[in-house]
Amino acid sequence: MSNDVDRVARTIERLDRLADLGRPAGEEGTTRPGLSAAEQGACELVAEWMEEEGLAVSWDGAGNLFGRLPGSDGSAAEIWTGSHLDTVPNGGRFDGALGVIVGLEAVSALRGSTHGPTLVVTVFRYEEGWRFGGGCFGSRAITGDLPPDELDTVDVDGVSVRDALEALGFEGPAAAGSLPGYFVEVHVEQGPVLEARGIRHAVVTAIAGIGGFTVAFSGASGHAGTVPLSHRRDAFLAAADFALELRRTASSISDAVATIGDIRVPGAARNVVPGRTVVSVDVRAPTSEGLKRLVDAVERLGEEAARRNGCSAAVETRWLTEPVPMNDRVRSALHRAAEELAIEAIDLPSGAGHDAGIFAAHGVPTGMLFVRSLNGGISHRPDELTAPTDVGTAIAVLAGTLARLSGAQPDAHQGNAVPSGVGA
Amino acid sequence: MSNDVDRVARTIERLDRLADLGRPAGEEGTTRPGLSAAEQGACELVAEWMEEEGLAVSWDGAGNLFGRLPGSDGSAAEIWTGSHLDTVPNGGRFDGALGVIVGLEAVSALRGSTHGPTLVVTVFRYEEGWRFGGGCFGSRAITGDLPPDELDTVDVDGVSVRDALEALGFEGPAAAGSLPGYFVEVHVEQGPVLEARGIRHAVVTAIAGIGGFTVAFSGASGHAGTVPLSHRRDAFLAAADFALELRRTASSISDAVATIGDIRVPGAARNVVPGRTVVSVDVRAPTSEGLKRLVDAVERLGEEAARRNGCSAAVETRWLTEPVPMNDRVRSALHRAAEELAIEAIDLPSGAGHDAGIFAAHGVPTGMLFVRSLNGGISHRPDELTAPTDVGTAIAVLAGTLARLSGAQPDAHQGNAVPSGVGA
Repeated sequence: MSNDVDRVARTIERLDRLADLGRPAGEEGTTRPGLSAAEQGACELVAEWMEEEGLAVSWDGAGNLFGRLPGSDGSAAEIWTGSHLDTVPNGGRFDGALGVIVGLEAVSALRGSTHGPTLVVTVFRYEEGWRFGGGCFGSRAITGDLPPDELDTVDVDGVSVRDALEALGFEGPAAAGSLPGYFVEVHVEQGPVLEARGIRHAVVTAIAGIGGFTVAFSGASGHAGTVPLSHRRDAFLAAADFALELRRTASSISDAVATIGDIRVPGAARNVVPGRTVVSVDVRAPTSEGLKRLVDAVERLGEEAARRNGCSAAVETRWLTEPVPMNDRVRSALHRAAEELAIEAIDLPSGAGHDAGIFAAHGVPTGMLFVRSLNGGISHRPDELTAPTDVGTAIAVLAGTLARLSGAQPDAHQGNAVPSGVGA
Repeated sequence: MSNDVDRVARTIERLDRLADLGRPAGEEGTTRPGLSAAEQGACELVAEWMEEEGLAVSWDGAGNLFGRLPGSDGSAAEIWTGSHLDTVPNGGRFDGALGVIVGLEAVSALRGSTHGPTLVVTVFRYEEGWRFGGGCFGSRAITGDLPPDELDTVDVDGVSVRDALEALGFEGPAAAGSLPGYFVEVHVEQGPVLEARGIRHAVVTAIAGIGGFTVAFSGASGHAGTVPLSHRRDAFLAAADFALELRRTASSISDAVATIGDIRVPGAARNVVPGRTVVSVDVRAPTSEGLKRLVDAVERLGEEAARRNGCSAAVETRWLTEPVPMNDRVRSALHRAAEELAIEAIDLPSGAGHDAGIFAAHGVPTGMLFVRSLNGGISHRPDELTAPTDVGTAIAVLAGTLARLSGAQPDAHQGNAVPSGVGA
């Protein structure tokens, strides 16, 4: 298949077919838990499509899937592109799957061209992290980042990661896999920025660092009728005050976000002044400096808001991951590939975590291409949507990028074939 | 028993005995649901104590208990004093019971004195309202305020009010009972004001009107990492903004309070921007004008906070009861009785509802005496506390008040015997 319009149609058709795997009867969305039979079925279907393209299919002990298009230079480090095929519960058809199928089409488009390094389409297992906790399991298995006891973690049914792998016929992750020379991941933006700006693509600058906190405000409960306002130590009002101040501070930090997603008032009742309120806090920033300012703000603003409301605050840090910048050479290759096709692509940080972050943190030169999400950037829902024309340009930009990176190994550029005009 | 110190000791002992009725094994607090066997047992014990005092005991079809000390003037309207004996789950020993036992001691103290009207110690059933909903059941049965279907309401076990009455041997409320000439209720403050000001008693000015609302804020949910702050429509932040503004407005209205006691974020998760947040709102004020300002504020501030945060607000009024002023003649009698004993008593509104509010709303000249709550005004908990010395002055002030009201019928004052120096 060489017609670019056909590549887009085939991609959409394949995304639809994948969406049918793991869709409960009568439901709109798809549920493919990581390391489940449904995710395995999706991987096996992609393996068939890889074979149809003449790629050499292999699996590793963690269930990761590889489809290799051998290059002319057997000594060159491989170039990988791909993403994941598991979904959140009742998820959409683009998150993860788009990066796999676009990767397959881009490598397919480069078939027959001269490229030094082997090009590899990759599927990393259990990226979403909701079944056993964790997440980015497959990529962390390759980088050797799995703690020894992670295979013993269990899902709600008591099935361990080890059991799940065994049931699918995998022997479990090896010590660590060999890392590629480059990794490029295509992914839907999952946010509203590209749609709002009328732009198809973004080149990711960095994967945001994330701080997760639980902040507990303690005051004094009391009768809603008999305790005058001046005597109150209302823990919910302390939390409300904190939430508004945290937004104010986050707004002053470039590309930073802060979210209070979960609010709990133990023993809540209409006629009782809340004596305790516990909130979750999620802060993200694409730079270490920005993240540090956010983390400091959580502690300081929590205490200040508590004090203003006669309460105390206890801040517990649940996790803290540093931002991971994307590789300059890969970012540049993505931008140049887009320019060559006259496709506008802006820089954006990624607020969500991705397998690309795992490889980048391990020194693999890594880049990401975002594809515009429609419907206000909705994701993790059945109405998650990306337009076919944007899928077409994603294939073209990725193919151009892989060609550039192939030619650029170790440093010089070769003029490989690049499909053009796809969906433009 | 005429020694005033003995009256206090007996009152405390009786409160302790009552607290044992309905205390689950191993628990600190007492659970006496309205119209339960435990509440019935408490009523029967009080009926025995009434008989020991020579009072004529009777019950009505709703289970209300009366202990009459006949006066010299058979044509005069009765003067009632009392409260309730049911408790909240795991409640304390003073809420309700104190008003009954202090009433019994005050009437006992007036035995042998000349009083025109019959004095009646009353116990009204099921005041707390948590078992079947409603509340102030006994007093509403007397005033004829029970809707026809209220007897069919059921508790969590499916037992109806009618079943509960029948199991206790009561035939159900009559159309309406005859109303007293005066009603005086002694009750713990259940708030921190008297303790903070170092004063034993308050004369209640009015029972606050209460507005109950549910306010639902709707915005747009989104990924905590991928939706920039500028694109968000965070329903929790709208609710937080509303909560702080509502407090600001309530603080500007005399003796008004506003409480958000229950906050729910459907589908809440750490990494999801809240698309919807539903809060309960409870506002109270002792004047109609103040209550109207509060009610208007809930609607207006809800909409303004929603708009500021890109959300919408839907305000549902759950209930709205007007404030009930206490009777001037009874208030004056309470103040004069206190002055005569050199006991300081300030004016305070009651933010909580009481049986007194039911009678006052039906034109019965009604008053309430608050007794200082310790421990910051905690109530509805096992550590609810009122000091013996304050119990003593409550008996003395109530006895003096009943004597004044007896003599004042219809309008002139008679110098009845008043115990003095009790616990001063």
